[in-house]
Amino acid sequence: MTDTRTAAAAPLHPSPTDGTRARPVAPAGPRRGVGVGELVLDGGFWGRLQHTNARATLAHCVDWMERLGWIANFDRVAAGATGGDRPGWQFSDSEVYKLLEALAWEHGRTGDESVNATFEALVDRVAAAQDDDGYLNTCFGHAGQRGRYSDLSSGHELYCTGHLLQAAVARVRTTGPDRLVEVARRAADHVCREFGAGGRDGICGHPEIELGLAELGRALDEPRYTEQARLFVERRGRGTLAPIALLSPAYFQDDVPVRDADVWRGHAVRALYLAAGAVDVAVDLGDDDLLAAVERQWTRSVERRTYLTGGMGSRHQDEGFGDDWELPADRAYCETCAGVASVMVSWRLLLATDDVRYADLIERTLYNVVATSPRSDGRAFFYANPLQQREPGADVRPDAVNPRAEGGVRAPWFDVSCCPTNVARTLASWQAYAATVEGDVVSLVLHASADLRVALDGGGELALRVRTEYPTDGLVRVEVLDAPDRPVTLRLRVPHWARGATLTGPGEAGPVAVDPGWAEVRGALGAGDVVTLELPTEPRFTWPHPRVDAVRGTVAVERGPLVLCLESVDLPAGVAIEDVRLDTSVAPRAQGDGAVVAVAAVAPTDTGAGRPPFASHRATSDPDATVASTVATTQVALVPYHRWAERGPSTMRVFVPTL
Amino acid sequence: MTDTRTAAAAPLHPSPTDGTRARPVAPAGPRRGVGVGELVLDGGFWGRLQHTNARATLAHCVDWMERLGWIANFDRVAAGATGGDRPGWQFSDSEVYKLLEALAWEHGRTGDESVNATFEALVDRVAAAQDDDGYLNTCFGHAGQRGRYSDLSSGHELYCTGHLLQAAVARVRTTGPDRLVEVARRAADHVCREFGAGGRDGICGHPEIELGLAELGRALDEPRYTEQARLFVERRGRGTLAPIALLSPAYFQDDVPVRDADVWRGHAVRALYLAAGAVDVAVDLGDDDLLAAVERQWTRSVERRTYLTGGMGSRHQDEGFGDDWELPADRAYCETCAGVASVMVSWRLLLATDDVRYADLIERTLYNVVATSPRSDGRAFFYANPLQQREPGADVRPDAVNPRAEGGVRAPWFDVSCCPTNVARTLASWQAYAATVEGDVVSLVLHASADLRVALDGGGELALRVRTEYPTDGLVRVEVLDAPDRPVTLRLRVPHWARGATLTGPGEAGPVAVDPGWAEVRGALGAGDVVTLELPTEPRFTWPHPRVDAVRGTVAVERGPLVLCLESVDLPAGVAIEDVRLDTSVAPRAQGDGAVVAVAAVAPTDTGAGRPPFASHRATSDPDATVASTVATTQVALVPYHRWAERGPSTMRVFVPTL
Repeated sequence: MTDTRTAAAAPLHPSPTDGTRARPVAPAGPRRGVGVGELVLDGGFWGRLQHTNARATLAHCVDWMERLGWIANFDRVAAGATGGDRPGWQFSDSEVYKLLEALAWEHGRTGDESVNATFEALVDRVAAAQDDDGYLNTCFGHAGQRGRYSDLSSGHELYCTGHLLQAAVARVRTTGPDRLVEVARRAADHVCREFGAGGRDGICGHPEIELGLAELGRALDEPRYTEQARLFVERRGRGTLAPIALLSPAYFQDDVPVRDADVWRGHAVRALYLAAGAVDVAVDLGDDDLLAAVERQWTRSVERRTYLTGGMGSRHQDEGFGDDWELPADRAYCETCAGVASVMVSWRLLLATDDVRYADLIERTLYNVVATSPRSDGRAFFYANPLQQREPGADVRPDAVNPRAEGGVRAPWFDVSCCPTNVARTLASWQAYAATVEGDVVSLVLHASADLRVALDGGGELALRVRTEYPTDGLVRVEVLDAPDRPVTLRLRVPHWARGATLTGPGEAGPVAVDPGWAEVRGALGAGDVVTLELPTEPRFTWPHPRVDAVRGTVAVERGPLVLCLESVDLPAGVAIEDVRLDTSVAPRAQGDGAVVAVAAVAPTDTGAGRPPFASHRATSDPDATVASTVATTQVALVPYHRWAERGPSTMRVFVPTL
Repeated sequence: MTDTRTAAAAPLHPSPTDGTRARPVAPAGPRRGVGVGELVLDGGFWGRLQHTNARATLAHCVDWMERLGWIANFDRVAAGATGGDRPGWQFSDSEVYKLLEALAWEHGRTGDESVNATFEALVDRVAAAQDDDGYLNTCFGHAGQRGRYSDLSSGHELYCTGHLLQAAVARVRTTGPDRLVEVARRAADHVCREFGAGGRDGICGHPEIELGLAELGRALDEPRYTEQARLFVERRGRGTLAPIALLSPAYFQDDVPVRDADVWRGHAVRALYLAAGAVDVAVDLGDDDLLAAVERQWTRSVERRTYLTGGMGSRHQDEGFGDDWELPADRAYCETCAGVASVMVSWRLLLATDDVRYADLIERTLYNVVATSPRSDGRAFFYANPLQQREPGADVRPDAVNPRAEGGVRAPWFDVSCCPTNVARTLASWQAYAATVEGDVVSLVLHASADLRVALDGGGELALRVRTEYPTDGLVRVEVLDAPDRPVTLRLRVPHWARGATLTGPGEAGPVAVDPGWAEVRGALGAGDVVTLELPTEPRFTWPHPRVDAVRGTVAVERGPLVLCLESVDLPAGVAIEDVRLDTSVAPRAQGDGAVVAVAAVAPTDTGAGRPPFASHRATSDPDATVASTVATTQVALVPYHRWAERGPSTMRVFVPTL
């Protein structure tokens, strides 16, 4: 069984909660991700996050959407009681769908019946709001509302539908067809009728329908959906969307056709969802030109428009990409959802090409953007993820909707609250990004303590037990629990930063140096065989490219896949974060708790108070003119970026000036 | 006659076009600015700009507003034909008023009857739209429109009225009461009835009414208007404005009362108009606490939130101030209107305090923000004035409304087109900022070739002829043409950057060193006496304060009051602007045309193409890792910033990395 299209269609008739091979992305082609049920986490970094997501975040999202009336919007449509003030933005339905997707993965992975009950209760309310012809939206098309598809630029109707379809994919692949799958099928059929060849020649201002249709097409073996996704991708970039206020067509990627574009631009989440959908279409239809276009865009965007954290989006103004090399640390937007979307794109490209660089970016983004968003209790989230905080964020108001997408404060909910549910669905399906399978080759993409039992395409299973303290320690021990009695290949990813890594295969005398990329063990494997990968996770300095003006003269500290940051709460009293300069002649030193200690000079800068005007500029190059003479050498602790602002309002910086 | 309140009221009965002492700001207190007719420019930097403004810009603004229907909006109200689509934003009336103000100053200064005819024809159409009770607005309050003051946060009704009052001030002080003055009086009376004590307890989302009321109160000797301005100032900062979408109360300065604030924040133009109005209220009512508050805000904002150009506003998102030291060069917003507003604030503070630092900022802002906006033909304008352009702006579409406020392209008109008319009214009244008079002391604030004939408060006149090539040359020669036969004081401003300046008084043997500040000549002056000021205008390097992260490791070049910039069109073929590093060990050298030549190394940086991923970051501090080995030393020309992008689309930077 090497045809993954067939494999994808298989879960149409599974037993309930047979989510073993269920996964969000199942393209045509020889390579697949593991299913959410093929890998069980044994605690660790991601196990804890997934546990908190299940225990706290899912209910948190249900509670807030009930409280704000976003779920009740469906009840009002069902009751014919629309018109008047409707709570939430025009795209609030999508949050309910992303939550449904998260619940579906959680239930599919664990079989937790209480999660399933929440899911089914929500689905009943959603389904009741569907119109007879399959249209489903609580903001448009009913009494007292604007007409269907009357505002493609900002109405988000197709965007919402796309998320509905993704939720249905999660469901059909974990439990099989059910009421939500039927709702999604009718919604997708409606979209194909309405926007198919000969129908409305339109696209949605916010891409998402493309990847939703493509994946539901795979899950239900329905090529009409793939074709509709292709139409939406091809229609884009021709300037057909009506302008929104002061935003340019690049804002929603309607400036250049997808296959002609060289770089991502405009609203980052839109650009990335579109790219993900384009990969889906390219892969399923064998459109190599389109695939090459997205690879080209990835390459330039990751080179020049991506932060050290993997964060994307340099501008608050349009939540968008900036120009090449425009990567301000302080005003970095790096929306959490853009991190989620970036993982979605890179994962599709990894499946399509096997190129390890996509896996490297997935890891970087998961650790430093996605994991940064949720507070440790899973009940508050970062929306923006800047790399420098100049003013301490305000105290969290535990019970308030946060109107702003600024950095520094994890808020329980937002006016535009796309990030919490996006984090929830990603964490609930984290397993899906952990490994790939191609024929008899199993590749470990993300290193984490876990038990893995993978069905090989050539028949039989490979069962592995991975144990590691990664990311704080670089030793990854893989024990074979079960393997077929034919040669197989086990590959372990060596991240791009891991210079000096070694691999010890079963029966080998000692470690062998391995380069970044895929480290392979080939041949017959038997129960009890052990493979050991040792990744160098000593802290290291990372300098910015000289074209990144915003952080010239600074350095960052990384440790394994983790980006670290200097946070004001770790500084001696009276020392401002702006006064610290790192001494890069002394190597940074790891601490057991994930922190890193570096040597620094503390040189209080004269802020110019009382010396007007233009204290911010001076006519001499002598730094002593504005740096006070008392310079003290000290040690400073840097903490993993994903942990920052957990100890109250603080100032923070990832890139620290050097001595 | 030392009571300037009386002096301000005097033009109520002047002969037509007797604009001699007419000026935009006439506070209580001993110090006054010169009138627009007291100084006649003799060509030079500002003479040329003023000429182009008169010859091209005024008609350009009339044409665009006719074409877009912004003027016809008044006709529709007069005809009772409101409702349906109304062209322009809700604040478009204010553009007509700012144009009226510009026309009034131009006519008052020159007596040009064709300008007057344009003015009067426009006033007839505006006046016809006024409601019986004095309310005047084309967007609210009529059939098919939203109700009066139904949206104080974003309706801009009082903002528009404020600009109407400023136009009327220009008129009453140049020609005396006329139809517009009567319209303004009725509008102001309406505002006092509606928003006075016991009326609506509201404020406008966009400050401007405060300074309009205060100045009309001065011009018409009507303390009720000053009192209403005071009420608006005092009501602000108490969180009464309904939130606008994702913007915080700081956006419209409704977060902290004016007298309690320490720094400007939020939307820059709003913050500055409010500050100007607060100074007016403070001065006229003797409120020293309020005046001290604005001085305190100026000090910190100029120290930490102001660009080298004098530009204000670091963020595109809300057109607003950033945090302290957040001064990105590339995403500097530095709206032209914020430059105009900053001059308005500093001028009021200069009159109130005589502190020369306010004059220094006025000069810096006029040369490097206000003069940067208009194209040399006066028919296109910058809206944003960034200090770095990473991608060349698009070609100008000569006949199009520009939807975006980005840098790099001067556009003929904007969707929100506040800047052209703001530049027009400022240039038409430029004289008003050139000098101050206090008793028998005349102080030259801005140096320009001009003939000056100033009525002294103690009686008689002081007539001066100033000749200079400033700002490209530092020699300022002042010849006395006429003086009273008693001792008087002539002061010439020595800018803060002018270390090593000298002054030669009448009859003195040679030059005397003078420090930055006011250089004085006291005593009896007679016709033929000559005073010579020599300012050092050799180019100089200016380093940023170390807390300004965005430009660490760079240097700027200044020459006199001019900030210079490196523009791609001046570089050898094949050299990117990012590859230039200035050699600060060699002093920059002036060229005759205002340009400056500096020594630089050209070091092409490896952009990382083909070396994925994360080329923008590297694990070594060796610059050679990303800088190619071929480094050539060359000379580069820098041009005055105000001239940039005059030669087609280009990339540009003010702060250039150093070797």
